[in-house]
Amino acid sequence: MKPYTQLSKEELKALKNDLEKQFKEIKKKGLKLDMSRGKPSKAQLDLSNGMMDVLTSDSDLVSSDGVDCRNYGVMEGISEARKLLADMSEVPERNILIYGNSSLSVMFDTVSRAMTHGIMGNTPWGKLDKVKFLCPVPGYDRHFAITEYFGIEMVNVPLLPTGPDMDMVEKLVSQDASIKGIWCVPKYSNPTGISYSDETVRRFARLKPAAKDFRIFWDNAYSIHHLYDDDRDVILELLNECIKAGNPDMVFKFISTSKVSFPGSGIAALAASEANLEEAKRHMSFQTIGHDKLNQLRHVRFFKDMQGMYNHMRKHADILRPKFEKVQEVLERELGGLEIGSWTHPKGGYFISFDAMEGCAKAIVAKAKEAGLVMTGAGATYPYGKDPKDSNIRIAPSFPTVEELAVAAEIFVLSVKLVSVDKLLKA
Amino acid sequence: MKPYTQLSKEELKALKNDLEKQFKEIKKKGLKLDMSRGKPSKAQLDLSNGMMDVLTSDSDLVSSDGVDCRNYGVMEGISEARKLLADMSEVPERNILIYGNSSLSVMFDTVSRAMTHGIMGNTPWGKLDKVKFLCPVPGYDRHFAITEYFGIEMVNVPLLPTGPDMDMVEKLVSQDASIKGIWCVPKYSNPTGISYSDETVRRFARLKPAAKDFRIFWDNAYSIHHLYDDDRDVILELLNECIKAGNPDMVFKFISTSKVSFPGSGIAALAASEANLEEAKRHMSFQTIGHDKLNQLRHVRFFKDMQGMYNHMRKHADILRPKFEKVQEVLERELGGLEIGSWTHPKGGYFISFDAMEGCAKAIVAKAKEAGLVMTGAGATYPYGKDPKDSNIRIAPSFPTVEELAVAAEIFVLSVKLVSVDKLLKA
Repeated sequence: MKPYTQLSKEELKALKNDLEKQFKEIKKKGLKLDMSRGKPSKAQLDLSNGMMDVLTSDSDLVSSDGVDCRNYGVMEGISEARKLLADMSEVPERNILIYGNSSLSVMFDTVSRAMTHGIMGNTPWGKLDKVKFLCPVPGYDRHFAITEYFGIEMVNVPLLPTGPDMDMVEKLVSQDASIKGIWCVPKYSNPTGISYSDETVRRFARLKPAAKDFRIFWDNAYSIHHLYDDDRDVILELLNECIKAGNPDMVFKFISTSKVSFPGSGIAALAASEANLEEAKRHMSFQTIGHDKLNQLRHVRFFKDMQGMYNHMRKHADILRPKFEKVQEVLERELGGLEIGSWTHPKGGYFISFDAMEGCAKAIVAKAKEAGLVMTGAGATYPYGKDPKDSNIRIAPSFPTVEELAVAAEIFVLSVKLVSVDKLLKA
Repeated sequence: MKPYTQLSKEELKALKNDLEKQFKEIKKKGLKLDMSRGKPSKAQLDLSNGMMDVLTSDSDLVSSDGVDCRNYGVMEGISEARKLLADMSEVPERNILIYGNSSLSVMFDTVSRAMTHGIMGNTPWGKLDKVKFLCPVPGYDRHFAITEYFGIEMVNVPLLPTGPDMDMVEKLVSQDASIKGIWCVPKYSNPTGISYSDETVRRFARLKPAAKDFRIFWDNAYSIHHLYDDDRDVILELLNECIKAGNPDMVFKFISTSKVSFPGSGIAALAASEANLEEAKRHMSFQTIGHDKLNQLRHVRFFKDMQGMYNHMRKHADILRPKFEKVQEVLERELGGLEIGSWTHPKGGYFISFDAMEGCAKAIVAKAKEAGLVMTGAGATYPYGKDPKDSNIRIAPSFPTVEELAVAAEIFVLSVKLVSVDKLLKA
């Protein structure tokens, strides 16, 4: 098929007529489909059901360091859980601190702590006139929501196929002491699915921030969430690179098992330098007497070690792969060569990122909704919900079945075509 | 035996000689005993072991409102957990919000939220020059630690047998708009074990605070933690009293199952007016995608309802009662009539509070430590760790066995006697 941009007005009108008929047909079906959130499917959750059976009333509930996991104590997490999550984070055990059930809470808590108590003796952010965060875009809406909630000004930085635009990051960070952080999803990024290049990671480690309390918020949410066994992204481990570069304290790494075991019932951790963890632990000592050690034990007894976790992730991949491939197939078949949109081809993570023609994203999401398909709100992948080009749409293929996805993808491409034709007709 | 205060110097010297011999004997044993923290014993934890078996891989893991508890969602807690904790808190379901594993974290989070975002449109506490909390004393060290950590000035208020000195509370709260809160453990108070009278609760509900964002932090940690079946303290439910008095938003109630099921692996909740919960929920929506719903389900399936929880608490009482009675027996036998100390006789909770002669508490705790007995640090029951009279000591009889407690109590009374004799000799 010819690119839409090369069609005459007449051809576009005929096309529109045809597309509207198709849309009417699909609307009639009264479907209810959802490609909005990165939520594991029922089949994925079933993979971890065995976790329910590893601890019973007859189990030894004492951790390897001799602690009764049923009682108070051991604020930093039981040894075996620290070992497992240290391995998952690719850091030594001394660099890991276990938290509760959610890495998002750890990020929120880390920002909140910096607001009220500051970082390493620096002025609490809440006492400063202005605090800014760099936000690689498109990015994760819940990151942006945290910084907005605390009144932190967000500055967009383009996310390139190699990671954030490091020329821009280096320049801004070294010149502006009010820039205190940057949000990063370094592997299978949300939503584009790209992974940071080695050069990007090294440039992060070598940053010379004007602010002493500048921190890289490194949300490695999809560190082991590959789709393919033989074609995986590998990224450099940032804490170690920071140490080598003489910047050991510059990074907070966040990790959790939310999309490994159960969302909401997983375990989360902060990986950072010992000096950073000392501060985090002091804060935690006022906050809690300890996190859920039984759930920590349950995770370790179920996965045993990283090999066990890798094997488990292969089963997730077997469920997710056909879903990503189904969406890619429909996008390619229906939109390939039309020049009305481009999309990413991630090898892992939870999302495909779609870029429509400028000014079309909101209309496409609204159109899809008319036919019963819920997409992530257009703009959500940008700070303040404002996509300056109104073009990015996040596609989350994990939750629906492959059959549902096939239909959902058809509704989506039809919506893209219709909105694009309208735009071209108005041009 | 005659009161020590009526002994002559000669008699005191002879007594000291004799006590020192006894102390040397007991020191020789090289004991290691701990009456410092309100920690359940192994036997108490065993009571809840069945909780490990209620959820298995074959279980229906869908909540009564149709939610798969293994996945994201339902930020405010699953219905059945809200019902159970609402019943435990004696409030309607609309007034309960489920959190994670610890009520201490909920309190910390509530103070932290007021610091960064303020309460109901009022200036965030972190932006004010001065914020004060009233602290009934003696009280709970971890409460005082939170307010101290946030730079909140603490004002001591005497805790009477009926609750805080309400004349003082009413006067201070109505005159000083910088007073934003008061820490309360209304039932089987930590450490004195007293429960607030109906009149005290009603006076709390009728407070006319100068600060619109004044809140009563009502930590009902021992609400169902009775020692006796036929002799229980009952307190008025504060939220309802506040509603009746036209002050529905004045109270935050905190509750958890930490000392019902497992400390660290329980569930916690905030009970408050709907307007307060709306604010708390908004904050939570940035903080997390949801708490551990599987653990919520586990608790409900295990306890079923409040009747189940009451039955369970009777088993706790059967284990705790002999321990409290053993300590009381030794205190009465060894110190009764000596006029060198007084102590409380709680009908529930986790502590006995001991008041030594002025200026003796620190020395007594140090003396006990010499013989291998760890007590809560003297002063811990006061803000900033400063007991103005240096007389209060918290006794926590829950963790050791009855046999260990018998020995621990002997060390304690011996330490009290020795330090008291020394004081009288110096007088």
